[in-house]
Amino acid sequence: MRLSEAGEKARILTEALPYIRRWAGATVVVKVGGEALEEDDALDSLVTDIVLMRFVGMSPILVHGGGPQISDVMRRLGKAPAFVSGLRVTDAETMEIVKMVLLGVVNKRVVAAMSRHGGQAVGISGEDGGLLTARRVRGPGGEELGFVGEVERVDPAILEGLVAGEFIPVIAPIAAGPDGSYNVNADRAAGALAGALGAQKIVFLTNVPGLYRDLGDEGSLISETTADQLEKLLDSGSLSQGMIPKIESVLDAMRAGVPQAHILDGRVPHALLLEVFTDEGVGTMVLP
Amino acid sequence: MRLSEAGEKARILTEALPYIRRWAGATVVVKVGGEALEEDDALDSLVTDIVLMRFVGMSPILVHGGGPQISDVMRRLGKAPAFVSGLRVTDAETMEIVKMVLLGVVNKRVVAAMSRHGGQAVGISGEDGGLLTARRVRGPGGEELGFVGEVERVDPAILEGLVAGEFIPVIAPIAAGPDGSYNVNADRAAGALAGALGAQKIVFLTNVPGLYRDLGDEGSLISETTADQLEKLLDSGSLSQGMIPKIESVLDAMRAGVPQAHILDGRVPHALLLEVFTDEGVGTMVLP
Amino acid sequence: MRLSEAGEKARILTEALPYIRRWAGATVVVKVGGEALEEDDALDSLVTDIVLMRFVGMSPILVHGGGPQISDVMRRLGKAPAFVSGLRVTDAETMEIVKMVLLGVVNKRVVAAMSRHGGQAVGISGEDGGLLTARRVRGPGGEELGFVGEVERVDPAILEGLVAGEFIPVIAPIAAGPDGSYNVNADRAAGALAGALGAQKIVFLTNVPGLYRDLGDEGSLISETTADQLEKLLDSGSLSQGMIPKIESVLDAMRAGVPQAHILDGRVPHALLLEVFTDEGVGTMVLP
Amino acid sequence: MRLSEAGEKARILTEALPYIRRWAGATVVVKVGGEALEEDDALDSLVTDIVLMRFVGMSPILVHGGGPQISDVMRRLGKAPAFVSGLRVTDAETMEIVKMVLLGVVNKRVVAAMSRHGGQAVGISGEDGGLLTARRVRGPGGEELGFVGEVERVDPAILEGLVAGEFIPVIAPIAAGPDGSYNVNADRAAGALAGALGAQKIVFLTNVPGLYRDLGDEGSLISETTADQLEKLLDSGSLSQGMIPKIESVLDAMRAGVPQAHILDGRVPHALLLEVFTDEGVGTMVLP
Amino acid sequence: MRLSEAGEKARILTEALPYIRRWAGATVVVKVGGEALEEDDALDSLVTDIVLMRFVGMSPILVHGGGPQISDVMRRLGKAPAFVSGLRVTDAETMEIVKMVLLGVVNKRVVAAMSRHGGQAVGISGEDGGLLTARRVRGPGGEELGFVGEVERVDPAILEGLVAGEFIPVIAPIAAGPDGSYNVNADRAAGALAGALGAQKIVFLTNVPGLYRDLGDEGSLISETTADQLEKLLDSGSLSQGMIPKIESVLDAMRAGVPQAHILDGRVPHALLLEVFTDEGVGTMVLP
Amino acid sequence: MRLSEAGEKARILTEALPYIRRWAGATVVVKVGGEALEEDDALDSLVTDIVLMRFVGMSPILVHGGGPQISDVMRRLGKAPAFVSGLRVTDAETMEIVKMVLLGVVNKRVVAAMSRHGGQAVGISGEDGGLLTARRVRGPGGEELGFVGEVERVDPAILEGLVAGEFIPVIAPIAAGPDGSYNVNADRAAGALAGALGAQKIVFLTNVPGLYRDLGDEGSLISETTADQLEKLLDSGSLSQGMIPKIESVLDAMRAGVPQAHILDGRVPHALLLEVFTDEGVGTMVLP
Repeated sequence: MRLSEAGEKARILTEALPYIRRWAGATVVVKVGGEALEEDDALDSLVTDIVLMRFVGMSPILVHGGGPQISDVMRRLGKAPAFVSGLRVTDAETMEIVKMVLLGVVNKRVVAAMSRHGGQAVGISGEDGGLLTARRVRGPGGEELGFVGEVERVDPAILEGLVAGEFIPVIAPIAAGPDGSYNVNADRAAGALAGALGAQKIVFLTNVPGLYRDLGDEGSLISETTADQLEKLLDSGSLSQGMIPKIESVLDAMRAGVPQAHILDGRVPHALLLEVFTDEGVGTMVLP
Repeated sequence: MRLSEAGEKARILTEALPYIRRWAGATVVVKVGGEALEEDDALDSLVTDIVLMRFVGMSPILVHGGGPQISDVMRRLGKAPAFVSGLRVTDAETMEIVKMVLLGVVNKRVVAAMSRHGGQAVGISGEDGGLLTARRVRGPGGEELGFVGEVERVDPAILEGLVAGEFIPVIAPIAAGPDGSYNVNADRAAGALAGALGAQKIVFLTNVPGLYRDLGDEGSLISETTADQLEKLLDSGSLSQGMIPKIESVLDAMRAGVPQAHILDGRVPHALLLEVFTDEGVGTMVLP
Repeated sequence: MRLSEAGEKARILTEALPYIRRWAGATVVVKVGGEALEEDDALDSLVTDIVLMRFVGMSPILVHGGGPQISDVMRRLGKAPAFVSGLRVTDAETMEIVKMVLLGVVNKRVVAAMSRHGGQAVGISGEDGGLLTARRVRGPGGEELGFVGEVERVDPAILEGLVAGEFIPVIAPIAAGPDGSYNVNADRAAGALAGALGAQKIVFLTNVPGLYRDLGDEGSLISETTADQLEKLLDSGSLSQGMIPKIESVLDAMRAGVPQAHILDGRVPHALLLEVFTDEGVGTMVLP
Repeated sequence: MRLSEAGEKARILTEALPYIRRWAGATVVVKVGGEALEEDDALDSLVTDIVLMRFVGMSPILVHGGGPQISDVMRRLGKAPAFVSGLRVTDAETMEIVKMVLLGVVNKRVVAAMSRHGGQAVGISGEDGGLLTARRVRGPGGEELGFVGEVERVDPAILEGLVAGEFIPVIAPIAAGPDGSYNVNADRAAGALAGALGAQKIVFLTNVPGLYRDLGDEGSLISETTADQLEKLLDSGSLSQGMIPKIESVLDAMRAGVPQAHILDGRVPHALLLEVFTDEGVGTMVLP
Repeated sequence: MRLSEAGEKARILTEALPYIRRWAGATVVVKVGGEALEEDDALDSLVTDIVLMRFVGMSPILVHGGGPQISDVMRRLGKAPAFVSGLRVTDAETMEIVKMVLLGVVNKRVVAAMSRHGGQAVGISGEDGGLLTARRVRGPGGEELGFVGEVERVDPAILEGLVAGEFIPVIAPIAAGPDGSYNVNADRAAGALAGALGAQKIVFLTNVPGLYRDLGDEGSLISETTADQLEKLLDSGSLSQGMIPKIESVLDAMRAGVPQAHILDGRVPHALLLEVFTDEGVGTMVLP
Repeated sequence: MRLSEAGEKARILTEALPYIRRWAGATVVVKVGGEALEEDDALDSLVTDIVLMRFVGMSPILVHGGGPQISDVMRRLGKAPAFVSGLRVTDAETMEIVKMVLLGVVNKRVVAAMSRHGGQAVGISGEDGGLLTARRVRGPGGEELGFVGEVERVDPAILEGLVAGEFIPVIAPIAAGPDGSYNVNADRAAGALAGALGAQKIVFLTNVPGLYRDLGDEGSLISETTADQLEKLLDSGSLSQGMIPKIESVLDAMRAGVPQAHILDGRVPHALLLEVFTDEGVGTMVLP
């Protein structure tokens, strides 16, 4: 090893020390969308970061989506995906497919990747151990959406046991509803979980560089903001449709006492790790 | 309440006392096939029995199959199920379907039923927390079967945490193999788990009344037998193909120290409860 | 086993499940009078029920009387029992006899019966470990009664240790008084213990079918009532003398937060078990 | 305080330090006969010593007899006490009296005295929690003695819980026998308990100054001896009848690993305290 | 042993019982000055008393000074000790000597003496584990004193771990200051520690018989007083300079909830033991 | 942050992951000589590495020397340091200076540096809590050396409590000897501690690049070797005098079951961190 490289390694590792110290023992909820789990490289990058967080003493909890994967299987089964204002219309047959894909495919793909990188992950549906209970919701115009719900209650007992055993929970956004399984928005599920667990941080990995003051103006990327300003941004109507549930989840989590939220570009390799362990922030940070 | 009915109730409840006492704290592994989970009544009967076992202080662990459900979805996706000596030929696409059906459909159907009857169940794949590791196997004639494996190693840490938290684990027979997820026989998975957990009892719920001395002769039902006699029966060739992995699993579990095994008729309502809590046995009991 | 009988057994056992679930972990104080402990059959019935409660996860605590047995030994020692308004006049010699009979005979007879039915019971005097402290009381007309007291303070530490060790405490109503051992009413001791322990239920086993609206009118048996109505009944003067301390104890316990009380006919075999584990109630239930 | 007296106090207290240190955490079984419990002064002296042992960190366990008290009540009930070779002939009625007197009178007298001196004592019969199980024995000449037994099995679970809670167990020598309660020799019960508990010391408080080499020769008091020499003494026939079960119990306890036994004169005030906490020994010490 | 001596020993040991009981589990902070640690006899007397306190279940914590020893080494190194109103002027070099002497000499001398008398002591600087943090102070006339501080914050975590492990902490009055190690007054450090630990008692061992109403009048020794009266005494100006920080520390500790303080003559052998374990008090006791 | 730098940071942090995982929970003993503690930069580098080890879940324990510092103070006090074969001749006065310097200066300098970098360190002498006991040794030619000893017994109880509390122990090589404090070789103390604690690794930070096959030939640096080869090297006589106790300590530790030892160049910044957390080794590694 050349000395300069050794020095560089030492510098970067010691730069991480204050962050490791600060987040020791902290529960951090990370939300990742289905699209970010399709490429092996992106999955490996994400999973390495999560496992590293676990090994330096944090308690990471991953909540994942799976929209593209669900639509894909629906099409293979001859069913056309339908959406109302971004919410998937979910009849009984679609719900069956949602569970098959989220629990049987996406969730297990993440668990297996964690295992390959040395983490002990456990795939969890929101129905396991009564973790998530949902009530039925309609579309913004009162449309009947089927088995689509919003989180009504979180019972984190099962997560607490797993976290104590140093397992990494990987959670699919399915909840027990009044008449069977319900499809819930993964962003909102992550926010509700972070609140119920008293998490110290919630991170949304997206496919944009962060939050913009002016949608479409790359120069207006917000590197730090507050809950108050977010509420104004939400009211202003200048947010993309995909960003709205993230912002609402950030606000939910902060109301429940989570002191820090991040919106990062999940396409940047190791964006999570860089955010957590280095001096430079990436994406948008929200403080109360 | 008429007095005679009250007396009958008291008699039956007090009859259960010695069994409750004997099995207090015991780990009991129950294996149920996919066909027994199709009818709501049968599922409710099974799940009630398991939840009752949990509430009187036992630690039941359920391992389930899902053969008919897998074949059904394969056909819907235009794929013909194929078998070699009872083992499903499992190419990569089939394996994906196996996971979708077992984890996304069958497993969650059981978890939801437990929840309806007041039990806190947690659905677990053998890949979660490194529970089951498999090696690849071939057919009896050396046939290439794809992602079909046999259990090589059991790491019960995840079950121990869940059982301590009074959750009921519901396990799908999928294992981490050398190159991805593997399909393992649910009977054999149950036997391996019972051995690794030091279970006090393993129960196989089947669709026959029990084990027969002479296949086809209803009068030859065996109510009690030993491991030695089972080995002879296995060598004699007079067992049905479906019974062979059950018998091998019983023998595996007994070699690992499990002191009692049962083969019951899962079609009899509450067969499990009657076996565990009443004087009369049902089906076939095996002692070492 | 005939199928219909199996079905009946399964029906009754599964009927018990919701009750087992509801009372899991609950502390239940049961008071039984001395007369109910004289017959072997009645004792066995009671003790089986208590042991069953313990094995399905409840924490039963038994408080017993012993009036007839004390009077019997007094007569054998040439001493005439005397009472003022139902309270035994207790001089020093009588107190010695009270202790000999309650602790040496009645208490140990119950402990031995528990042991025969598989329960680990421990006989406890209210003087052990400082459990019960009493102050001296006089008769309603100011009569000097000797070593007769009412419970002034309960220190449940000793019971907590025993219950944690899964022992069943069997308690004789003797308390430490200002100048030696005191005789306390077993009903009142049971009520005070239930309050101090935060019990979820208190049950009085009596030799009548329950509480009557009109004393002497069998048709006026009350199956359910409230604390408020009990207070009125107490004021009305229409209660038998033996029932008064039970009613006062129920009211004491409810004021201390015990949410449910029962007055049952201890002469019905397994009355306790039927009350706790079946749909039909027996006797009188009191809610706050 | 005069300085010389202060110095004397300091000298005696610091003399105790090495003994307090040596016996910290040690379980010590103390046996006392019924006659030593009759006088208030002797009882107070004994009980103070035991409470002091508890407060300096030892775990004392007291086993008591009650012969004179039993015989006294028998006579009051018109029954003549009868003995064969020192063993009380115990018919069913006598056994009832034994329990009444030991549990209802003697045991509770000790518990109350402990309480007066600040110790939390708990009276225990050998039948409580399955502590002592006995088999029936006959007299040396094969005489039928009734409910007289010898300890067959000790289950110390109940004592361990009480000792952990810093209670002082006070044990009456009654055991569960094959057909009811049995009378066992208190010396032998103490020896069996010391062995089962892994006690560090067993002390017998007697009404003689110790063990004599020559019975009747006061000058032949043995201050220290070994198990081997005791066996010879036992064979020599020169022991008084009351001393024999003590010696046998010492030998039993030593075979079970108890490393130190003492035979002290219980009539000397605070003999126990002087033995345990001062340089000068009193009575006879036995080492392995 | 003559009987009269045995009786005397028993009398003194049983006299200690109520005190042992009363102080069981209590944290007691003892402050001793450097001069009292110079003579071997005085050190042995003190250390024996502390070890005895530990063995009867108290948690003693010793805080020591070391003024004479520091001045001595300073002189050997050619540096003249200087004081302003009793506070040592402490430049960087002096601070180095203070640490060398307190930590390398005085503290270790006490730890070694504890070890010789069977106690497991651990020497602690106020800088270890962040125990004591100080701010810089000046002399009463605004004089610059160097590294002289007063305790600003106490983090007792390290002491709690040691006390749980039954070690005896021996604490040198050095604290972490804004720019290095600081010298703090040992009396004040003891008072701050007693308050932060919720001690039940604080004892100052001095070289006078106690507190006097009139300085110089031996007959005016105060045997018992209150915090209120102490404040008046402090305002009256009739205290010696060495007594002032003791009185201020007593008042600090009492404000923080310590319910009892003592000022004893450390020159009397075993003064601490006599105060704690006998009926007669020595020196001055302060109650709130 | 430029993307290439972000990538570099991510690469180096993820490179550390397998090492963090491998050493999670491991006890690692680090020995550093007095000379390496003189410069602030070197001290900060070492202390950062140790604190980082603690925060990623390892249990580092530091043992330090202090030779140059001791000699320096001796000279200031007018005493000439003297050595026999590398062992300091230690009369009583020298021993006093050794303790003053090691405990009052060197040890506290390290503790304070840890505190500045966010670690909670506790300075410990081998005499604290009975950690190290030594016997007296003589020089190789039988020379009388005074208070110079070798470690005879290690009682790690005090370290276990501190490590459980997440404190970092910083240990000075002083031991309790037969007649007072003894000076022990810090390398040997580290080896003995590693063995007694069941450490997973021992690291010696020296002022040479590692171990050489041929002393003086820079090209003969050994990067990996075994205990067997070390023994031969020790016998060959080609080791520098300072290296001999290191090698003997490595061999001692390995005999006691420590599976890995390192000899590193403490002058390289963060040599410890690079060895523990990166792919490239530095210095010499010894395996069993």
